[in-house]
Amino acid sequence: MPPNQLYQYSLIGALLRGICADGLPAQDLLPHGTHGLGTVSELDGEVIILDGTVYHFPSTGMCSVQSLNPSERMPFALMTDFQPTKTAPITTPLNATTLFDIVAPLLGRGQNHFLSVRVDAVFSVMTTRIIPKRTSPTAGETLADLAQRQAVTTITETKGTLFGFWSPPYVAGIGVPGFHLHYLSDDRRSGGHVLDFRAETGEVQAAVLRKVDIELPETEEFAELAVDVPEADAVERAKGLGQ
Amino acid sequence: MPPNQLYQYSLIGALLRGICADGLPAQDLLPHGTHGLGTVSELDGEVIILDGTVYHFPSTGMCSVQSLNPSERMPFALMTDFQPTKTAPITTPLNATTLFDIVAPLLGRGQNHFLSVRVDAVFSVMTTRIIPKRTSPTAGETLADLAQRQAVTTITETKGTLFGFWSPPYVAGIGVPGFHLHYLSDDRRSGGHVLDFRAETGEVQAAVLRKVDIELPETEEFAELAVDVPEADAVERAKGLGQ
Repeated sequence: MPPNQLYQYSLIGALLRGICADGLPAQDLLPHGTHGLGTVSELDGEVIILDGTVYHFPSTGMCSVQSLNPSERMPFALMTDFQPTKTAPITTPLNATTLFDIVAPLLGRGQNHFLSVRVDAVFSVMTTRIIPKRTSPTAGETLADLAQRQAVTTITETKGTLFGFWSPPYVAGIGVPGFHLHYLSDDRRSGGHVLDFRAETGEVQAAVLRKVDIELPETEEFAELAVDVPEADAVERAKGLGQ
Repeated sequence: MPPNQLYQYSLIGALLRGICADGLPAQDLLPHGTHGLGTVSELDGEVIILDGTVYHFPSTGMCSVQSLNPSERMPFALMTDFQPTKTAPITTPLNATTLFDIVAPLLGRGQNHFLSVRVDAVFSVMTTRIIPKRTSPTAGETLADLAQRQAVTTITETKGTLFGFWSPPYVAGIGVPGFHLHYLSDDRRSGGHVLDFRAETGEVQAAVLRKVDIELPETEEFAELAVDVPEADAVERAKGLGQ
């Protein structure tokens, strides 16, 4: 795939609808880029892809990141061939607000394009969550249901890499408006879906994305359950925020 | 482009925001397929692409369909390499409702994928509209504003081709949920954006689309004006319905 395009498999609205039993084999995701994020079948934890390697935080525990089996199914994933067009040292304390201030100049005032963002830093605070695996698919539990019993962890003084995307508001139903970030520590022992962070030193890299390829699942569950535009607060709950 | 994928340039939300001065040169649209629809700079009329030829109904009059200048800018367009997987003769009176009944089996119950649809028929009734060209871009008139003074025409007993797409509800902000159809008569004298139709004989062809490539404009107007998810009734008004 050409650099700095976004490849998306399925829809955030599909996860919110509980469409997460089946998906794209992990090995079919890698041709679409070098960096990304996602989840695995039955929402069993969190996935981050850095420099072409897929890391999986299973819902059974924080300290057991592992490479994902190439045949493992991913019901939702985002990928990009990340080639940053902006690189900046961290000079003032970095959090989600100041991170956006740094990368926003890549967008025009309309903020209608997408961004990919990577931060390599020592994080003084890093709060992540890992979604518990769905144990009763037939009960139709959705991402929002599972997020109610997510495992939230805050660690301090952690060196690692945060990667993810910023999406414009009009993606509601297809993607997550705003930042969607995952984290992996350098020692490969901690990480997950990022809820909050702070860093004083390190580096921010980013690129603007103007082409979005959406691949819709050919799975039976996707064909059978209607996906609608979710309410904004359902997305916030699924992201683990605004509860 | 591989068959039966949807290529989309810009967003319906951008048209609704009045982002329509600039766009993709018509010649850059053709590599993305054989069939499609769109509009031109300042919303000067309606465009339909059939079998690789771009037809333009300028807002100056119905009876003057013309080939589009290859350098003409298109602020919004949809294209597909149309290779129908379903073909059916018209056996009962065809309108938008019965057309959906015919093509819906290509979707699962969830109706989450997209469809391309072509109808070749003698239409007993065909009602189309042509949007008037925007004359005051600096006043920021939007598609919904212009739709208030669209030229609506109903013709009877017209032989021609209707082509367009059906999109699922979650595309709000990016595309038009439901049918978005344009028409061109065989004599190349009438057509435009379809508001209503009826046919008793002819043929329906359709295909399901599972991959959507969205290209976001690199134009200054797109970079500067924020696109949000439009209200459903704004989309209906822009489609020329529900006024």
